[in-house]
Amino acid sequence: VRLYIYLSTPYQNERNELLSAYYMRQSHLFTKTRKEAPKDETAKNAKLLIRGGFIHKEMAGVYSYLPLGLRVMNKIVNIIREEMNAIGGQELYLTALQDKNIWEKTNRWSDEVVDNWFKTKLKSGSDVGLGFTHEEPLTALMKEYIQSYKDLPRYAYQFQTKFRNEERAKSGIMRTREFLMKDLYSFSKDAKEHEEFYEKAKKAYVKIFDRLGLGDKTYVTFASGGSFSKYSHEFQTLTETGEDTIYVDEKNKLAVNKEVYTDEVLKDLGLNKKDIIEKKASEIGNIFSLGTRFSQ
Amino acid sequence: VRLYIYLSTPYQNERNELLSAYYMRQSHLFTKTRKEAPKDETAKNAKLLIRGGFIHKEMAGVYSYLPLGLRVMNKIVNIIREEMNAIGGQELYLTALQDKNIWEKTNRWSDEVVDNWFKTKLKSGSDVGLGFTHEEPLTALMKEYIQSYKDLPRYAYQFQTKFRNEERAKSGIMRTREFLMKDLYSFSKDAKEHEEFYEKAKKAYVKIFDRLGLGDKTYVTFASGGSFSKYSHEFQTLTETGEDTIYVDEKNKLAVNKEVYTDEVLKDLGLNKKDIIEKKASEIGNIFSLGTRFSQ
Repeated sequence: VRLYIYLSTPYQNERNELLSAYYMRQSHLFTKTRKEAPKDETAKNAKLLIRGGFIHKEMAGVYSYLPLGLRVMNKIVNIIREEMNAIGGQELYLTALQDKNIWEKTNRWSDEVVDNWFKTKLKSGSDVGLGFTHEEPLTALMKEYIQSYKDLPRYAYQFQTKFRNEERAKSGIMRTREFLMKDLYSFSKDAKEHEEFYEKAKKAYVKIFDRLGLGDKTYVTFASGGSFSKYSHEFQTLTETGEDTIYVDEKNKLAVNKEVYTDEVLKDLGLNKKDIIEKKASEIGNIFSLGTRFSQ
Repeated sequence: VRLYIYLSTPYQNERNELLSAYYMRQSHLFTKTRKEAPKDETAKNAKLLIRGGFIHKEMAGVYSYLPLGLRVMNKIVNIIREEMNAIGGQELYLTALQDKNIWEKTNRWSDEVVDNWFKTKLKSGSDVGLGFTHEEPLTALMKEYIQSYKDLPRYAYQFQTKFRNEERAKSGIMRTREFLMKDLYSFSKDAKEHEEFYEKAKKAYVKIFDRLGLGDKTYVTFASGGSFSKYSHEFQTLTETGEDTIYVDEKNKLAVNKEVYTDEVLKDLGLNKKDIIEKKASEIGNIFSLGTRFSQ
């Protein structure tokens, strides 16, 4: 299972609370509200957050966090951390620099397979990449510590900066080239233990989005599953600027991603077409089964 | 002024305390002590920390933090954060990806000037670098918020991952290619305000190293000053594996870096050659004046 939550979710109405903190007194804060965002900024979310003094644009898809923005980020991080610890997660911190060799083993080094690598070179001439995700290094690391089924299950997670060489980065903080992500990887003894943890993780995510105040607008959404399971589960938050189209059943608080939306799937999930509404949404987290792909 | 503290300082004897934390119970922790470190690991510090389950080696000079190592790191970060806030620092968080244009203005983009850049490219073909320090982007950012002398002084700091393409990376966590660094940048109205803050910052550093348990072995060390001041100040901790040579006056709790150690400097500092002992040390922080170099 890989679970992740994009941490670039906009989170507003915090300014007053933030300012109450001692070292955040407004008189002391170096940021100010601004009348204008940079001219090349087209996304409304970034415009507002720049004008409010939460973030600073370094270049397209690359934003620094100013003191207020960092406080919001840290609050989100702590909520997620609490819920990940509550389901047995152990926090660690992997590196951005990635060894080509371990990615070649899973056939994910090539730019033809993965189209958003940032790559660079050591002085020795060796290629290294900047992690866009961490299945490979985390699995390699866990191999040192899992010697038998007695060492299972294990749940490791981190908050780490991911680098993704996005072709287009015009959605402000909704799709960036450098962002903090929480990713948890679970290692289970068997399918049953895996499924149980999968459900636990799903509940933890629902709780996180409730605590973040996004619960009402966030739907557990069935999406494509890959080789190891029929579906994966996305957490989709309704927003007009969302890049995803989902089909929502409000009564059952469920949705289906357009990519798998067919009559067959509706039937499989016991949903009725006349209860379904099409909506725009943004994916703020997901969970999926990776089977033995990385561990083998 | 740029102040920085390298956070890769080894910090031991913490295992018992760490294990007392609820979600760190030893029975739960996935790491174990190991009899062997990887064969290619030559540094004693990294060997011990790998065997103790604090860090994991990804490649030469690149180490992940396992749960115990991350706990130590976070404790160090929090001590530094408290002391930086106490002298008026405001925390923010800049990006790793760096815009070539702002580094060209200060003549620090070229590989002939800065020999440890990691560079990569956006899909558009534009060059970007990975920050090895952050004077340029921080100064550019502050320009948006400092309109007149009335907006001064301002002190901004961050804990950010720095990337440095070190030719040799054989000292374990003492010299790495990717590491967390605290860097504070001060912007003052005039020389007097600058000097006053410089002294405050020096005291804050002494306090930090005392709180970290390194006070007894750490010396304020006079080093070369550059264009804007006679000396800079390093914080050097005595260690046989240190890469620096310093000349220590134990009575006055001061030292002079070999790079500026002359009879003239001794006289200037009022030190007496017969009180001085040569020692090996490792630089764990420093402070220096940058004058108007970046702000202009």
